[in-house]
Amino acid sequence: MLVNMKFEGRDLISINDLSRDEIEHILDVASKMEGIKSPLLEGKILANMFYEPSTRTRLSFESAMLRLGGGVIGFSETRTTSLAKGESLEDTVRVIEGYADIAVIRNWEQGCAQVCADCAHIPIINAGDGSGEHPTQALLDMYTIRKEKGKIDGMTVAMCGDLKYGRTVHSLIRALSLYDVRVKLVSPKGLEMPRAELKAVGKDIEISEHHDFNDIIKEIDILYATRIQKERFEDPAEGEKAGIAYRIGLDLLKQGKDELIVMHPLPRVDEIEKEVDSTTRAFYFQQSQNGVFTRMAILSLLLGKVK
Amino acid sequence: MLVNMKFEGRDLISINDLSRDEIEHILDVASKMEGIKSPLLEGKILANMFYEPSTRTRLSFESAMLRLGGGVIGFSETRTTSLAKGESLEDTVRVIEGYADIAVIRNWEQGCAQVCADCAHIPIINAGDGSGEHPTQALLDMYTIRKEKGKIDGMTVAMCGDLKYGRTVHSLIRALSLYDVRVKLVSPKGLEMPRAELKAVGKDIEISEHHDFNDIIKEIDILYATRIQKERFEDPAEGEKAGIAYRIGLDLLKQGKDELIVMHPLPRVDEIEKEVDSTTRAFYFQQSQNGVFTRMAILSLLLGKVK
Amino acid sequence: MLVNMKFEGRDLISINDLSRDEIEHILDVASKMEGIKSPLLEGKILANMFYEPSTRTRLSFESAMLRLGGGVIGFSETRTTSLAKGESLEDTVRVIEGYADIAVIRNWEQGCAQVCADCAHIPIINAGDGSGEHPTQALLDMYTIRKEKGKIDGMTVAMCGDLKYGRTVHSLIRALSLYDVRVKLVSPKGLEMPRAELKAVGKDIEISEHHDFNDIIKEIDILYATRIQKERFEDPAEGEKAGIAYRIGLDLLKQGKDELIVMHPLPRVDEIEKEVDSTTRAFYFQQSQNGVFTRMAILSLLLGKVK
Repeated sequence: MLVNMKFEGRDLISINDLSRDEIEHILDVASKMEGIKSPLLEGKILANMFYEPSTRTRLSFESAMLRLGGGVIGFSETRTTSLAKGESLEDTVRVIEGYADIAVIRNWEQGCAQVCADCAHIPIINAGDGSGEHPTQALLDMYTIRKEKGKIDGMTVAMCGDLKYGRTVHSLIRALSLYDVRVKLVSPKGLEMPRAELKAVGKDIEISEHHDFNDIIKEIDILYATRIQKERFEDPAEGEKAGIAYRIGLDLLKQGKDELIVMHPLPRVDEIEKEVDSTTRAFYFQQSQNGVFTRMAILSLLLGKVK
Repeated sequence: MLVNMKFEGRDLISINDLSRDEIEHILDVASKMEGIKSPLLEGKILANMFYEPSTRTRLSFESAMLRLGGGVIGFSETRTTSLAKGESLEDTVRVIEGYADIAVIRNWEQGCAQVCADCAHIPIINAGDGSGEHPTQALLDMYTIRKEKGKIDGMTVAMCGDLKYGRTVHSLIRALSLYDVRVKLVSPKGLEMPRAELKAVGKDIEISEHHDFNDIIKEIDILYATRIQKERFEDPAEGEKAGIAYRIGLDLLKQGKDELIVMHPLPRVDEIEKEVDSTTRAFYFQQSQNGVFTRMAILSLLLGKVK
Repeated sequence: MLVNMKFEGRDLISINDLSRDEIEHILDVASKMEGIKSPLLEGKILANMFYEPSTRTRLSFESAMLRLGGGVIGFSETRTTSLAKGESLEDTVRVIEGYADIAVIRNWEQGCAQVCADCAHIPIINAGDGSGEHPTQALLDMYTIRKEKGKIDGMTVAMCGDLKYGRTVHSLIRALSLYDVRVKLVSPKGLEMPRAELKAVGKDIEISEHHDFNDIIKEIDILYATRIQKERFEDPAEGEKAGIAYRIGLDLLKQGKDELIVMHPLPRVDEIEKEVDSTTRAFYFQQSQNGVFTRMAILSLLLGKVK
C-alpha cells in the first residue's frame, strides 16, 4: 500500500474519488475476501438507506456485512420512513449516524449521496444516485475483469445497450480510463453515451462509437451489456426493433474471440438470450457474486479494519 | 439414521420428497432444537424470498436462523425487488445464491419453488407456492402431533374447513398417509378436498368425508381446523352460514374425547372461538412455536450441519 | 438498586409504570451503555412489530439490540402481515412470542400495547400507541437532560409547539412531574396541552401556559420543541402563521441563558431553523443517539440481563 493511501473514515461517492492505485488495492482486498467468513466487523453496524427499490445492491451489502460478522439496519423504501413526514435528507443522515457505523444510500436524486457525506461523520457509500454514479458497481465490474482476465491493461471492452441513461456504464468507463484499455461503445441511435461523459474520459483512452455489433465483435475481450428500456423510445416500434438488434445470442458470440466474456450488471430482461447462460462466456452471475467480495473489501477499508 | 438418508444440499419442495424415515429424522432433530440457542449455523446466511405477504412463516424462519447463530437477508414483497423491472425468477435465484447459503421462497405461482430449485446450486425450501404445497408447515404439524400424542400411528385426525383451497391440509394429508392413521374430512359443500388429492393418498390410509362435526367428534384425537374464506362462496349468505356451522366452540369440544386436541395453521379469523384458547385442548399457539424448532432442524440438515 | 425494584419480565407501556427511582436506575444503566458493544443479549431475539411507519424508533431499537449481540425480526408495515387476513392483534402477539424473547409494538390505536402485554408472556414495550404514550421517548429525553445538565431537579423546561396531539410531550411531562422542575407550556391557541394531561400532573409540579416565547425565553434551561402540523388548523393561513410564530432561530436563542439547550424528538420540518444546528445549543441529534443507549438499558433490564 502506498504511503498516502488511506481509506479509514472516507466516503465513496464517485469512482473519481479513487486513484488507480486505490482501485487496485480495493481489488486486492476483495480477492482475499472470496469465500471468507470472519468476525472482522463484529460489533459494527451498517445502515442501508434505500429510498428506491433494489434487490441485488441492498442484499449484496447485507450479505457482505453479515459475512464479516457485522449487523445491518435500514429501510428499503420511502413510505416507511420519516421522509414521508417532511424530514430533510440531512436530518435523516444525522440521525442514522447515531445508530450506525457506516451507511449506504440509494436515492433517485443526483448528488444526494454527496449531500449526505457532507453532513455525516460516518463513511457514506453511494449505491446509486439517480442517473449519477454507482461506484461499487464499477468496482465489482473491474474486479470481475481482472479476476477473469488476470489484468485490465490491454483489454478491449465493448459496452452496449442504453449508454445514455445507464449510470453503471458511466462509472465503469471512468474507472477503465485509468487503465490502458480500448473501449467500443455500441448503442441504438439516441441512446449514445452523453458527450459530457465521453469528454471526461476521452483524453485518457481510445474510444470508438458504433451502432452495429458486427463492427466490433471480432476485436473485443469483454462484452458488457446493459438493459435497453423500451420506454426510452418515443416510438414503441423503434424500441422493439432496438431490443432485437442489440440482443446477444449464440450466433453473435460465435463470431467473437475464444476468450470473449459477457458481463451484465443485471437485472436482465432479454438483452442476453438464456441459451448464453450455460456457456463458458457467461460471467454475469459470477459478476453479481463478486459484488459481495468487493463490498466486503470496501466496508472493511472504510471502517479501518483492513489497511 | 438410515444409510441412504442424506439431507445436505437437498431442496425441500414437496412433502412427497420425504420418506417416513426422513420425516421421523427431521422430527427427532427438531425435538433436540427445543429451547436451544447455538452457534451451529454461524457464518451461514439465509435468504428469505417472500413475493407474498407472510408474517409467521417468514419470521419463524428468521427466528430459527438467528437462534442457530446465522444471518438473514431477503425481501418481503414484490414491489421492492427487481421483479418489478421484469427480471425472471430464475435470474433472481441465480443472483441470490451468490449472496446466501440457503433460500426460502414463497410465491403465488404453483411450481415456482421447483423452478428455483432446478436452477439453484444452494438448497431451496418451498414456503408455499400458490395452492401447491407448504411442506415445512406439514412437518411442524406432524411434529406437534407426535410431541403432544407421543406418536402419530394410531391417531384419528379430523381436518375441517376449506379443504379445497387450503394448501396446508393438502401437504398434511400426504405426510399422514405415510403413517397408520384414520382421516376424517369435514367441510362445507363445495369446499371438499379435491378428488386428485384424495386419490393420491386414498390407497394408503382410511379416509372418510363428512359435512357435520357430529358425525366425527366422538372418535377423533386431533381436530385440525382451517380458515373458511367467505369469498369462496358465490352466495355470501352461504358463506356466512358455513362460517357458523363449522365454528369450533366449547359446546362442540365437550362432546369429544378427553385427549382431543385442537390445531390450526393460523391465522385464525373466527373458526375457533376465543373461549377455546384458555382450555387444555388449544395447541395452535404451541404449534406455531413448534415451527421454529422444525425449521431449525430443516435448516441445519439441509446445510449439512446436523446429520 | 432498591430492594423492590425489579425489571426482569416486566412490560413498559406507560411512563406511569415507573417510579422516580426506577427512572433513575434506567438512566444509570443507559449511561453505562454509551459507546459499548457487548454480547450481553447474545441469543436473544427482539421482535419489532411496527404497524405504522417509523424510521428512528424502529432503527434505534434495532441498533440497540445489535450492539448487545442480539438478533432482530419483525415487520415495518401492515400490508405484509397477517393483519391483512383479519387476524386479531392478540393472536399475532401470541404467535410472535413463540419466535422472540421481547417485542416492541407501534400501532395507531391507543391502548393496543396494553392489550398485547395482557396476553403475552414476554416483555412488551410500547413504542407509540396513537395519541397515547411513547415511554421510551420520554426516557431518552430525561436521559438527555440529566446528561447535559448533570441533574433534572431544579430545571425550568419549556415545551413548545403542538402540545395537544404530540404524545411525546404527554409522556415527558409525566416523567418530569416526578422531579422538582418548573414547566412552561408554549403553544398556538387551539393546540394547548389537554386539560386531562395537565390535571394528571399539575398537583406535582409548577406549570404555566403561554402563547409567546418572549414570556419565557429568559427563564428556561431547556427548550423542548415539537412539530406543528399545519393540517391541525382549520384555516391554512392560521397554520402558516403559527409555524412562523413558533419557529426557533438564533434571534430568539440569543435572548436565552448561556446554558439554554434546545431539544426536539424529531423528525423536524421547520420548527428549528437549520442555522441553530451548528450552535452549542443544539442537542436534538445527540438526543436521538441517546435513544440507542436508553433502549439498550431497557432491553437489558426487561430481559433480566442487567439488574
